[in-house]
Amino acid sequence: MECQLTIVRTEQKKEKPALDKLGFGVHFTDHMFTMDYTEGKGWHDPQIVPHAPLTLDPAAMVLHYGQAIFEGMKAYRNKAGKVLLFRPEQNFKRMNRSLERMSMPQVDGEFMVDALKQLVALEKEWIPAESGMSLYIRPFVIATEPCFGVRPSHTYKLIIVLSPVGAYYANGMEPVKIYVENKYVRAVRGGTGNAKVAGNYAGALKAQAEAKEKGYEQVLWLDGVENKYIEEVGSMNVFFKVGEEVWTPALNGSILEGITRDSTIHLLKDWGIPVVEKRISVEELYEAYTKGQLEEAFGTGTAAVISPVGDLNWNGHQMILNGEKTGPLTTKLYETMTGIQYGEKEDKFGWSVEVSE
Amino acid sequence: MECQLTIVRTEQKKEKPALDKLGFGVHFTDHMFTMDYTEGKGWHDPQIVPHAPLTLDPAAMVLHYGQAIFEGMKAYRNKAGKVLLFRPEQNFKRMNRSLERMSMPQVDGEFMVDALKQLVALEKEWIPAESGMSLYIRPFVIATEPCFGVRPSHTYKLIIVLSPVGAYYANGMEPVKIYVENKYVRAVRGGTGNAKVAGNYAGALKAQAEAKEKGYEQVLWLDGVENKYIEEVGSMNVFFKVGEEVWTPALNGSILEGITRDSTIHLLKDWGIPVVEKRISVEELYEAYTKGQLEEAFGTGTAAVISPVGDLNWNGHQMILNGEKTGPLTTKLYETMTGIQYGEKEDKFGWSVEVSE
Ligand SMILES: Cc1ncc(COP(=O)(O)O)c(C=O)c1O
Ligand SMILES: Cc1ncc(COP(=O)(O)O)c(C=O)c1O
Repeated sequence: MECQLTIVRTEQKKEKPALDKLGFGVHFTDHMFTMDYTEGKGWHDPQIVPHAPLTLDPAAMVLHYGQAIFEGMKAYRNKAGKVLLFRPEQNFKRMNRSLERMSMPQVDGEFMVDALKQLVALEKEWIPAESGMSLYIRPFVIATEPCFGVRPSHTYKLIIVLSPVGAYYANGMEPVKIYVENKYVRAVRGGTGNAKVAGNYAGALKAQAEAKEKGYEQVLWLDGVENKYIEEVGSMNVFFKVGEEVWTPALNGSILEGITRDSTIHLLKDWGIPVVEKRISVEELYEAYTKGQLEEAFGTGTAAVISPVGDLNWNGHQMILNGEKTGPLTTKLYETMTGIQYGEKEDKFGWSVEVSE
Repeated sequence: MECQLTIVRTEQKKEKPALDKLGFGVHFTDHMFTMDYTEGKGWHDPQIVPHAPLTLDPAAMVLHYGQAIFEGMKAYRNKAGKVLLFRPEQNFKRMNRSLERMSMPQVDGEFMVDALKQLVALEKEWIPAESGMSLYIRPFVIATEPCFGVRPSHTYKLIIVLSPVGAYYANGMEPVKIYVENKYVRAVRGGTGNAKVAGNYAGALKAQAEAKEKGYEQVLWLDGVENKYIEEVGSMNVFFKVGEEVWTPALNGSILEGITRDSTIHLLKDWGIPVVEKRISVEELYEAYTKGQLEEAFGTGTAAVISPVGDLNWNGHQMILNGEKTGPLTTKLYETMTGIQYGEKEDKFGWSVEVSE
């Protein structure tokens, strides 16, 4: 790979949006990172350039066959002005797993973390330093060859765009209402569920829309084979506090290997709380609920970090968790995780990566 | 919808490629059709414009979440100069089913067939009149809104591009070798298998690549639940001649409803051949093979029309069909179907739609 990173600075910096108008992924910073791949030549021409529209052939394979993968991570800025990334090397490792599943070329993770640090340093002013706010980082790779043959593209583009994002919980943490999906399937073993590939998300929109119509914010996905075992909640991994234990679905090939999931497991174990990674049927969960053992439930993911679940509807069986209030373990996890992310709590696992000027 | 179609002709016509260098979907004609959708306004600004690159925001949803669907059809030109489409209204009906599954807005099928006819008439010179050659038509719809929220886009673009394509069988029909896939899954009930959505195709590349490494041209997909029942072959529907009957997998929600499949069933029934649409396990097929009843197998799809299968490998059990030669029923179907498509055989079902100047 050609490792020389070129930087072309914008001549016209954009005005920054008001902090109370940030939303999620609608405003973008002044620069982006791009790198091209050509078969036979490998990845080449890494550069930081002004954020600008792409020119794509209407036959570019990404638009037809969905050969596209992405990652999602954040940069945090604390009151002391320090800028931190959270386990970025894990995102590029997962990116490589996604690329492999989609027959796309691998990237050099170390080089990517380095390039990302340079990009984030350049856009430092864009990172809101308010609590809960951050700079969302979206690396993605798309197939650019204009060809209708159903085969892997011979050319790709890797891009990183940055978007300042508001606090997920504008009015404090609010538990979400979840519908256990029994008609649509997100993923099945042998499919693409454990890769962060574009098509998984479009495929999930319909279930989400139908759940919304029924008054639920998100769906709990069940496995594609038996429609029985819990997989994920929306675009998050899911955890349940059952008595003294915490349960989470074991990674089975159709569940995304969340980095927040992994970090949550580390924290819980560190606190001496037994974490059970296993196949969890909804029946089993409901049974725990009826026995009064299901104390808390929460989703984990980069966007919300930790998202409490207040209400679960499984075929009309309603499970109200912790009186629809955020439970103590969920709160402790959220505070610890975000404390580490903002560099305000001890980072005993060495997760934070500082972005220097 | 705003139905006024604007036509902007190119100022510089491209040179047409040599007929023996056409390939599949690599050369494009001078013009394309485009139409935009904006929430609240609906589809608007249908136009035929010079074929040109698209400008897309790097955050356009299609690039991240795969909210994209497509269709595939052909225009045929015969020796008498007549230009024909084959059941185009069916493609736009299926397009609407795919759009619905992806939470994307419906199109007006009649308007689309009409616009397509105008586009094809304008590009008439691009349609090779040689036997087996045609003009491949690729309508597709992509989500264009720049936003990272996981929800349906509020803006879309529908595009039709045209590509002259060579004969699928340059040296006469050659039966393909097929590997029965037992690790990867294309689709599962409750998923997106019966919609023509981008992500289905990228998800299938890996299995195809591994089959190629083993010496097979394509894979036979099994169902995602039990990994036992036959679904499709590559990007085609599949048929088996077993004794006096023809079997094909019943439409079950995870199989694409092929228009060539439907046409094949009509022709076979018209010829008095019993067509059995049912759940077919590989075991059952292998049993028929060992009893000497499995006489022919073929795939059906717009690209190849009818594609003979010569060799099926199921976990090391090899099924050699009709001595790896194209069987008589397969040949008759190919000749009849293409005869109708080129307007050279009686079109008793009224499938052909003429494109007038
Ligand atoms: C489907 C899905 N599951 C889980 C997650 C959580 O992963 P992470 O914790 O790495 O953000 C994500 C990404 O946010 C996701 O898209
Ligand atoms: C997955 C898949 N199955 C089957 C088919 C065959 O459909 P049709 O006969 O309408 O071309 C296609 C499209 O060509 C396809 O993409």
